[in-house]
Amino acid sequence: MHYLPGESHRLPGSRASLTDYQSTHFQYAVQDKVATITLSRPERKNPLTFESYAELRDLFRALSHADDVKAVVITGAGENFCSGGDVHEIIGPLTRLDMPGLLAFTRMTGDLVKAMRACPQPIVAAVDGVCAGAGAILALSSDIRYGTARSRTAFLFTRVGLAGCDMGACALLPRVIGQGRAAELLYTGRAMKGEEAERWGFFNRLCEPGEVLMEAQAFAAQLANGPTFAHGMTKKMLQQEWNMGVDEAIEAEAQAQAICMATNDFHRAYHAFVAKEQPGFEGD
Amino acid sequence: MHYLPGESHRLPGSRASLTDYQSTHFQYAVQDKVATITLSRPERKNPLTFESYAELRDLFRALSHADDVKAVVITGAGENFCSGGDVHEIIGPLTRLDMPGLLAFTRMTGDLVKAMRACPQPIVAAVDGVCAGAGAILALSSDIRYGTARSRTAFLFTRVGLAGCDMGACALLPRVIGQGRAAELLYTGRAMKGEEAERWGFFNRLCEPGEVLMEAQAFAAQLANGPTFAHGMTKKMLQQEWNMGVDEAIEAEAQAQAICMATNDFHRAYHAFVAKEQPGFEGD
Amino acid sequence: MHYLPGESHRLPGSRASLTDYQSTHFQYAVQDKVATITLSRPERKNPLTFESYAELRDLFRALSHADDVKAVVITGAGENFCSGGDVHEIIGPLTRLDMPGLLAFTRMTGDLVKAMRACPQPIVAAVDGVCAGAGAILALSSDIRYGTARSRTAFLFTRVGLAGCDMGACALLPRVIGQGRAAELLYTGRAMKGEEAERWGFFNRLCEPGEVLMEAQAFAAQLANGPTFAHGMTKKMLQQEWNMGVDEAIEAEAQAQAICMATNDFHRAYHAFVAKEQPGFEGD
Repeated sequence: MHYLPGESHRLPGSRASLTDYQSTHFQYAVQDKVATITLSRPERKNPLTFESYAELRDLFRALSHADDVKAVVITGAGENFCSGGDVHEIIGPLTRLDMPGLLAFTRMTGDLVKAMRACPQPIVAAVDGVCAGAGAILALSSDIRYGTARSRTAFLFTRVGLAGCDMGACALLPRVIGQGRAAELLYTGRAMKGEEAERWGFFNRLCEPGEVLMEAQAFAAQLANGPTFAHGMTKKMLQQEWNMGVDEAIEAEAQAQAICMATNDFHRAYHAFVAKEQPGFEGD
Repeated sequence: MHYLPGESHRLPGSRASLTDYQSTHFQYAVQDKVATITLSRPERKNPLTFESYAELRDLFRALSHADDVKAVVITGAGENFCSGGDVHEIIGPLTRLDMPGLLAFTRMTGDLVKAMRACPQPIVAAVDGVCAGAGAILALSSDIRYGTARSRTAFLFTRVGLAGCDMGACALLPRVIGQGRAAELLYTGRAMKGEEAERWGFFNRLCEPGEVLMEAQAFAAQLANGPTFAHGMTKKMLQQEWNMGVDEAIEAEAQAQAICMATNDFHRAYHAFVAKEQPGFEGD
Repeated sequence: MHYLPGESHRLPGSRASLTDYQSTHFQYAVQDKVATITLSRPERKNPLTFESYAELRDLFRALSHADDVKAVVITGAGENFCSGGDVHEIIGPLTRLDMPGLLAFTRMTGDLVKAMRACPQPIVAAVDGVCAGAGAILALSSDIRYGTARSRTAFLFTRVGLAGCDMGACALLPRVIGQGRAAELLYTGRAMKGEEAERWGFFNRLCEPGEVLMEAQAFAAQLANGPTFAHGMTKKMLQQEWNMGVDEAIEAEAQAQAICMATNDFHRAYHAFVAKEQPGFEGD
């Protein structure tokens, strides 16, 4: 039997809507299939708390099953991205935890990164101002990063006596900016300037401060209107092939792309091309 | 017994000449031990077809046993590198294949990349103009890339509704230009300009359009006149160590380099140095 | 029971002082917990010999247990870093070794790199002038590299008929400067200029020739006065996660960082912050 594209028959029970999701700890809004998450305690430069970590983790986990959100933008209110774990609300309590409690915390923050890497939606970070500690990790764990020249991204765990290996930084950062530059940032906690971040491949683009969120949303909307099933496969394989050998990665891609060739979007693109029209992708 | 360099005693039956190879689907010529493969349907910007994919795969497989070709240049005729899989000749037929047929196709294209990475000859891509889709993968799968400022390299699978994970791109591209830049190109399919490609480490050099092929051939000839057995080992280990741990890679290189120290070329280099002469490498 | 920071109770028998270490084959001096290793045969541009390889390997192994050295600077005397294995003292004898002897040599040099990556102290290379062959590997195997514009770093193994896969170069160099640029340097042995090295992420900083050692030592001293237990964990995890999957790396970091949260330095940092003071890290 030849492959025949057809109507969508989604797996029952596995889909959920996240358009009307209400957040307790940050702003959340969906427009044009793009969810924008805005960390919003601007008077403190948008720190993370135990509760916001957990809610972000659960939200990104839920996005794996969302039908109506096709890309995500993450940003901060008031000219700063995120100042990371608050010293009083996070660091202080951590000094009083026992070892199982400490591990529960580091696993919770790590699970947030796992959830960001596991959801099929591309995540675009819009970074201005302070982007520090766990905030820098939120940017790093995104797929695409738009920043500003005045932004300052600092993996500053060392400043509070901790190691640079936080939430996957020693794995992720070297692959984005190179092993030597990553080592310097992780050992010192010094801020990477916006221009450095663009030059080193951390930021995909430098924008004006007043435009970085809008540009990130426009980019996300472009992805959300593309072949989103295929985008989810791209994201999955970028993760999946992280530590495969080259030949194994090539076989994995042969299988993954064969799946994508059995989607309606692939057929739509072909027929649009033949008709000299723009394809209308629907993500199935 | 000490190691004594000696005459070449090649494994019987495993060697073949590819100097006089005749191609049906592209131009092929050998000069000074450098084979130049020229994709040559310039009126269509040198697209690939089912037949040319298969012949390229078989040729690179055969090069593993070739005695007389020591480096390869791959290029396109008429101011473009390669426009990738032709929409009418490839995409259309793919929309009518069943799943085993689709997988047979994605495995064939993947096997071309495997063959390029497996042959011992360094491959130099000379890229001008359009370098798109599977054409961009041909460049990516080469060892060295010379390009032009006006070239446009686009991993445009997403434009036909497919994923960026094609022929190993999600494994190879992040290691060449970094994870963040690779993600952008693979999600969007946008063209990477020549200057970007050089700045990001995709192109090793930018050349004038009229000179890029000549410069690539001169570079390939320089490699072909070097210690080609050792070059083959360099290529093998770049592949082999792709997903090894650091300590395992170091042991693997200890073994690989010990093998190279038992070659005549190593002895030639030493004796030439002592005699204050240029070494004449012979690849054994 | 909650975690309570306390006095240091070091493992008996596992600690040694290296402040007063005397080297036979290079200069060695400790100041402010920073050991500076200076290769010092400037009239030959500081080549390595069988004996200096072995002593460097043993010294870096010993540093794993040193209590009093918290960072290392490696440099060369007289305006050059290191010319690598000497042709007369290393290459010549190698041409007369049998295969077990060759492998013993390549394992010894590889063990030097393993030891540099295994000791907990960050290593800062201060590179001026010639940085060639095994010298280039010493720089590559460091954590941080400061260089000069006039420096010339050449992985020139191919010039003596050998492969680029020496002492881990095919694993390490691609992760620092990208796969394509690494391939070019390893196939050709050509010198990477200082500006290229900075632009490509090999050098973390370009310094004036008269200042590169001083700046490297100042940087090392800054690290040595930081949370050195945590720095050792950063170094360990950069190595450990080299070929892990992303999720496995995140779990590994959750464990590693939980350990760091049970150190006195973490508590010191918190209390200093609350008291609006600078934390005084002690490495426990």
